[in-house]
Amino acid sequence: MARRPHAFTALTAHHDCEFRELLGRVGDKWSLLVIAMLERMPRQRSRFSVLRRSIPGISQRMLTATLRNLERDGLLTREVFAEVPPRVEYELTALGKAFMTPVCALVDWLQANWSAIKTARDSFDRRAPSRRKAS
Amino acid sequence: MARRPHAFTALTAHHDCEFRELLGRVGDKWSLLVIAMLERMPRQRSRFSVLRRSIPGISQRMLTATLRNLERDGLLTREVFAEVPPRVEYELTALGKAFMTPVCALVDWLQANWSAIKTARDSFDRRAPSRRKAS
Repeated sequence: MARRPHAFTALTAHHDCEFRELLGRVGDKWSLLVIAMLERMPRQRSRFSVLRRSIPGISQRMLTATLRNLERDGLLTREVFAEVPPRVEYELTALGKAFMTPVCALVDWLQANWSAIKTARDSFDRRAPSRRKAS
Repeated sequence: MARRPHAFTALTAHHDCEFRELLGRVGDKWSLLVIAMLERMPRQRSRFSVLRRSIPGISQRMLTATLRNLERDGLLTREVFAEVPPRVEYELTALGKAFMTPVCALVDWLQANWSAIKTARDSFDRRAPSRRKAS
């Protein structure tokens, strides 16, 4: 197995907590779902209410927080239109669109290997019922 | 922007909660750190105590839970040696090693774009101090 000296340098560096936190968040399912949904919309753009309806199970509060964090990271922009009631639209930035490439590669890998993972889980649970998934 | 019909199908499907949960966890910083650390060890193998010392800030409880979940997913194996005190070793499986490829691609992307993300955050915080990072 080849070593990969480039990756994980920042991950294991003590001083770069922000990078670790970012790593933790990009794997967050809501962030991924929001980005994926926006990418599917015409012009990678959507209103809050449309996004919310397109993501089953997300709460208003969680969607608001997720969108704010993604905006802060520069992955999407938020635009408020002076209408009554106010219309707010979100749009993927160039950075957000570029981010889809490695994310899709990861998702594709997981989908391709999903049955192997499921088999491993079933086998684990049969061998050690008391050692099932830890929270 | 090209559409990607293949990725995110499972992600957005109602019925596949396990897949969503897996996605949420692979981005978990502790899982990534444990896998990355194991990959760096000779023969991608390590004792619990060595792993723990190599990951600053991880608690015994968190490391135990993380290792158990990764074992359950088939990404590593756990071997107990009948010694006093018992010796326990963890080793990446072929699946765990293969998983490094998309994970490293994601980490590389984040590292390459980290300064752009930091710049976006600084700019966001200056524009909207009251809208800082949501938890």
